[in-house]
Amino acid sequence: MNTIGTAFRITLFGSSHGTAVGCTVDGCPPGISIRREDLESDLSLRRPEPGIGTARIEEDAIGIISGLVDSVSTGTPITITIANRDVDSSKYIKFKRIPRPGHADFPAIMRYGEAHDIRGGGQFSGRMTAPLVAAGTVAKALLSMLGVKVAAYTQSIGKVVDDDDHDLQLVLEESRQNSIRAASADMAELMRGEILSAAEDGDSVGGAIQCHCEGLPVGVGEPFFDTLEGEISKMLFSIPGVKGVEFGSGFRAAGMRGSEHNDPYAALEGQVITVTNNHGGILGGLSTGMPLRIRVAFKPTASIAKEQRSVDLATMKEASLRIEGRHDPCIVPRAVVVVEAVVSIVLVDLCLRGGFLG
Amino acid sequence: MNTIGTAFRITLFGSSHGTAVGCTVDGCPPGISIRREDLESDLSLRRPEPGIGTARIEEDAIGIISGLVDSVSTGTPITITIANRDVDSSKYIKFKRIPRPGHADFPAIMRYGEAHDIRGGGQFSGRMTAPLVAAGTVAKALLSMLGVKVAAYTQSIGKVVDDDDHDLQLVLEESRQNSIRAASADMAELMRGEILSAAEDGDSVGGAIQCHCEGLPVGVGEPFFDTLEGEISKMLFSIPGVKGVEFGSGFRAAGMRGSEHNDPYAALEGQVITVTNNHGGILGGLSTGMPLRIRVAFKPTASIAKEQRSVDLATMKEASLRIEGRHDPCIVPRAVVVVEAVVSIVLVDLCLRGGFLG
Amino acid sequence: MNTIGTAFRITLFGSSHGTAVGCTVDGCPPGISIRREDLESDLSLRRPEPGIGTARIEEDAIGIISGLVDSVSTGTPITITIANRDVDSSKYIKFKRIPRPGHADFPAIMRYGEAHDIRGGGQFSGRMTAPLVAAGTVAKALLSMLGVKVAAYTQSIGKVVDDDDHDLQLVLEESRQNSIRAASADMAELMRGEILSAAEDGDSVGGAIQCHCEGLPVGVGEPFFDTLEGEISKMLFSIPGVKGVEFGSGFRAAGMRGSEHNDPYAALEGQVITVTNNHGGILGGLSTGMPLRIRVAFKPTASIAKEQRSVDLATMKEASLRIEGRHDPCIVPRAVVVVEAVVSIVLVDLCLRGGFLG
Amino acid sequence: MNTIGTAFRITLFGSSHGTAVGCTVDGCPPGISIRREDLESDLSLRRPEPGIGTARIEEDAIGIISGLVDSVSTGTPITITIANRDVDSSKYIKFKRIPRPGHADFPAIMRYGEAHDIRGGGQFSGRMTAPLVAAGTVAKALLSMLGVKVAAYTQSIGKVVDDDDHDLQLVLEESRQNSIRAASADMAELMRGEILSAAEDGDSVGGAIQCHCEGLPVGVGEPFFDTLEGEISKMLFSIPGVKGVEFGSGFRAAGMRGSEHNDPYAALEGQVITVTNNHGGILGGLSTGMPLRIRVAFKPTASIAKEQRSVDLATMKEASLRIEGRHDPCIVPRAVVVVEAVVSIVLVDLCLRGGFLG
Repeated sequence: MNTIGTAFRITLFGSSHGTAVGCTVDGCPPGISIRREDLESDLSLRRPEPGIGTARIEEDAIGIISGLVDSVSTGTPITITIANRDVDSSKYIKFKRIPRPGHADFPAIMRYGEAHDIRGGGQFSGRMTAPLVAAGTVAKALLSMLGVKVAAYTQSIGKVVDDDDHDLQLVLEESRQNSIRAASADMAELMRGEILSAAEDGDSVGGAIQCHCEGLPVGVGEPFFDTLEGEISKMLFSIPGVKGVEFGSGFRAAGMRGSEHNDPYAALEGQVITVTNNHGGILGGLSTGMPLRIRVAFKPTASIAKEQRSVDLATMKEASLRIEGRHDPCIVPRAVVVVEAVVSIVLVDLCLRGGFLG
Repeated sequence: MNTIGTAFRITLFGSSHGTAVGCTVDGCPPGISIRREDLESDLSLRRPEPGIGTARIEEDAIGIISGLVDSVSTGTPITITIANRDVDSSKYIKFKRIPRPGHADFPAIMRYGEAHDIRGGGQFSGRMTAPLVAAGTVAKALLSMLGVKVAAYTQSIGKVVDDDDHDLQLVLEESRQNSIRAASADMAELMRGEILSAAEDGDSVGGAIQCHCEGLPVGVGEPFFDTLEGEISKMLFSIPGVKGVEFGSGFRAAGMRGSEHNDPYAALEGQVITVTNNHGGILGGLSTGMPLRIRVAFKPTASIAKEQRSVDLATMKEASLRIEGRHDPCIVPRAVVVVEAVVSIVLVDLCLRGGFLG
Repeated sequence: MNTIGTAFRITLFGSSHGTAVGCTVDGCPPGISIRREDLESDLSLRRPEPGIGTARIEEDAIGIISGLVDSVSTGTPITITIANRDVDSSKYIKFKRIPRPGHADFPAIMRYGEAHDIRGGGQFSGRMTAPLVAAGTVAKALLSMLGVKVAAYTQSIGKVVDDDDHDLQLVLEESRQNSIRAASADMAELMRGEILSAAEDGDSVGGAIQCHCEGLPVGVGEPFFDTLEGEISKMLFSIPGVKGVEFGSGFRAAGMRGSEHNDPYAALEGQVITVTNNHGGILGGLSTGMPLRIRVAFKPTASIAKEQRSVDLATMKEASLRIEGRHDPCIVPRAVVVVEAVVSIVLVDLCLRGGFLG
Repeated sequence: MNTIGTAFRITLFGSSHGTAVGCTVDGCPPGISIRREDLESDLSLRRPEPGIGTARIEEDAIGIISGLVDSVSTGTPITITIANRDVDSSKYIKFKRIPRPGHADFPAIMRYGEAHDIRGGGQFSGRMTAPLVAAGTVAKALLSMLGVKVAAYTQSIGKVVDDDDHDLQLVLEESRQNSIRAASADMAELMRGEILSAAEDGDSVGGAIQCHCEGLPVGVGEPFFDTLEGEISKMLFSIPGVKGVEFGSGFRAAGMRGSEHNDPYAALEGQVITVTNNHGGILGGLSTGMPLRIRVAFKPTASIAKEQRSVDLATMKEASLRIEGRHDPCIVPRAVVVVEAVVSIVLVDLCLRGGFLG
């Protein structure tokens, strides 16, 4: 279902090629300042760079239907719409018969039958992440009251991997300066090369996003089953294209020894900290007060210009397929603000549930 | 909260060092055969091998309180208890003052204060996975009615990695033959060496579990937010020690190109299949009918014999800590059946919700 | 929270004096015909009759944002907005200081503080029932596929009580012919007199609504806790002004004997029926196949022209209060379609959960 | 499903004629004193009086499986079992073929088929209210920390109606002195006569329960959809035999005028109070600080000694039915503590959700 969250609840609606997409955010306390500029600023980070992203022009005209009066929350649900523009749906019809590899076409047709709205990917489209970003803007406004900051950046594109550990404040500044959302201009250049090279080949490329969070109080989360990792990962895997999620040391932990992995505690200015951060800021499903470290793997965009093999569902014979139009050769830079949004939404929900907020 | 699931709902209760741990399974249709032997057989896979696992003797005496009459489900909630034995709680008291690195002690004390039941890890203990395994036995009985099989095995321990792709049926047979739950006797031997070597050093070691699932109909799952990946990962991250979850190509996808990653469709005996399985059996949050491929990373056991650095919370001074007693040098082999249980539970819930079962 | 339902889920948004009110309906299967005329027709039943209802002109301009293409559901969430018009909010400000008797002003100010949007009753306004009616139109379209009909009528206004048991089909026809939504023209006349008499006195009057439902299969509902009565009553008590809900014999049952109350079973054309219907179509939380009988008590409208006693919260001194403008002297006729909507929504949710639909 | 609540969550399990019934209470903060005597004391109020209630001996042997250490909550789920005794299930078998009027037999067989556990009413049995009472004991312990008191009493039995408004403290004392749970010894005598008269005729009789609550802070509840009335009524309708629920003036409100029904505000010792209490302590779904007034109608017990008409489902021919054994001629006195429990459970959930507790 399109609703998630317990004390801070998001409901998505719309689909790629309808009138609009949107969200309702329930549980935002009254009195919070949320300006149209904040919503627009976050949404602009999701827009494709010409030449890198899709040619589809997304103006993201925002409608605020309820919940905000004079840029301040009233305590009632906040409903925001983002108009859909530039829609040419005709070319999608054939995918009902010949499903695109790597897309949801095939299982969706099997599940929902003829009435499945396949245009632009329907409910499975990356377009649904636009209202998620808007909900994220609301969440960030709430987190800032707690002094909590969330920042993500592009950690890898194809073979180009940024292995450095970056400061969150620097990430917030640097990654906004380049359209790759890389943590440094140098990395942005290398990664841009990787994307353009794929694009030239009529191909696409995957990547990974790193998300940091600082300022979270100790003890946010729940032990069973609503752990910090569990709630974050559930929502991250809703983002189209995500194939893996890890926290702290993540998959590297599988090759480590306990004496190496355990982060020793130390006292610093009256606070308990850990000397290292393999645990990624979470133990037992609860935040430890150390920075969160989350890494998300994205597969390469499924829509590519190259000819692909599929099956004609009408004849059950193999068929070749060519996807017309231009598509993102790499979704990762646009997904950075989506990851930030998702993490922020989950943190607000768990902070409200645990009594840390409002 | 300790309840999860929509149409198939699990509630856990108990804690490591109380009278018992247990679960209530709600939503199991009437008429399903669930025998005590099945419950015992699955639970026995979670028991430590002497020399490899903890010395704590876990007899797992099962109590069936409700929901089963003559080994058949009645349609009312199934409540199963597993008695706790061999409990010496005294040694845990000091961890309220000096939290163990890598354990939930510190955030739990900050969140729950003095009344936190720290004995044996309380609610954060791996002991809570025993009733999960029992709930998994119920789920497997339901899945077998659909012809769905779930099988997991130890894919890596420390530096020993099993990169082969194993047949599910073979996994079900082989991994039961060795206490490492490896997919082959050779691998079991190498992995056992890795564990024993860590144990000799008073240390522990991490690992990864691979879980396969075959026979799932096309279309199981939900597009937003209750995706197959999202629901599985949320519950997997409840298992103590899990640091990462990936599906299909997982993190490798980040380095791939679309033409390489997209799995072409083909027709085989009137069925649509994919030629490769980078997507891991899931697209758009829905099953594709291809085998599920899930990989889970476990950190090394936090409890090690070596001296560690921590902080005395009473004095806020650094303090060294030594954890007495014997602990699992590696949790991974015992977690294999837990991963199977969790995946099975989620699949039943989504099959029931989608009308595929019952 | 503003979301309700498990398999058929309604999210309300907006408030009385914002831009619009609206709802998102999640869980509607694809392929269902839902026309704008159907939505308008149901909403028109909620509009006040001049002279009887409020003078506020509610045009109910409907916006369909998502989920319907060419009047057919696509399977994605259906979002409908209803524009707010004719808003003069200034007169509500004083109620933040001097709460109106019988309104939510006082507890809302205590709970939400200064940011509480009191204009027009904010989130507590009867205006929020407009999107409920729209969601009810979607629910009725689904129920009609099952051959289920829901019809409500005004059973009493003040001292005028209609004690006859009316045929559902007749109710559907007659109650649309008069603006009181009475089951006969004669009753409508008497009830209208009761309302006009109260209006002349600057007063208001309460009443009761009877809701029938026919065609429901046997076994819809859940035993514990999601009973048919429980789910219906929970949602009915969300309608502003509802003070009591009863099923079948209701409160009369308290004075009866078992031999009198028990409805004997009989066989009729291969169907099991009950000879009488004290049980109101529900036993053990499940439908029995007999017609549902639900009765809902509404208090008189809280806003009256007469001077009333209240307290000035700033000075904590008693103060007299006069509510300007014109208000419904009786809310009951307009609430008839709301009760129909609520009952329909709950029935669809429970039919979907029980596998009776879709 | 057998789970209810958001921040304070109850899961019921067991059935009338299995080994035990029980509940898991999740969300109880650590450090709360809950003694076995408190549990036993509340459960004893649910036990039948010889001659008035059923002859089935219910010892209510309590097992505390988890969540309490030395009578203090640990913060983990509290699981309590109550053993079933004195079970003779054989006589229930025939009701699978010839359903009892007024019982859930018929819809349950249609819904669940052959595997339905009909013994003693299975999941539909009043026996399931025993663990509800135990959960209520936990809830009352939490409410007492807030200074909130909940007390119910038998307000009517058959034609004997107690129309007085009783003081809560008196109710707590008086209603424990007589086995009818009446608010005065005189009323108890009259009501006992009504029950014995029905019993002599091989018949049963209905009644009503009044529940008061004092000390609740202002603002407990939610506006939409989780209103105080909605949450309470949903759970009350889970109690077998409940046919109606009303708050404050309830169904009488339908016949009243606004000037009569609106409760004027007044200031008393720096507190805002209402002069009358037609609203029953709730406005807009939120508590007003005035005493809650809840009334619940119970139908007469469905099991009576008299011969009744039913249908033989095997032949679809009408058949007469005689129910052997002894049954409660009136369930109302035993249900008083159940109503208290249900109201207490909902109040704790809403207090926790609103930040009023813990």
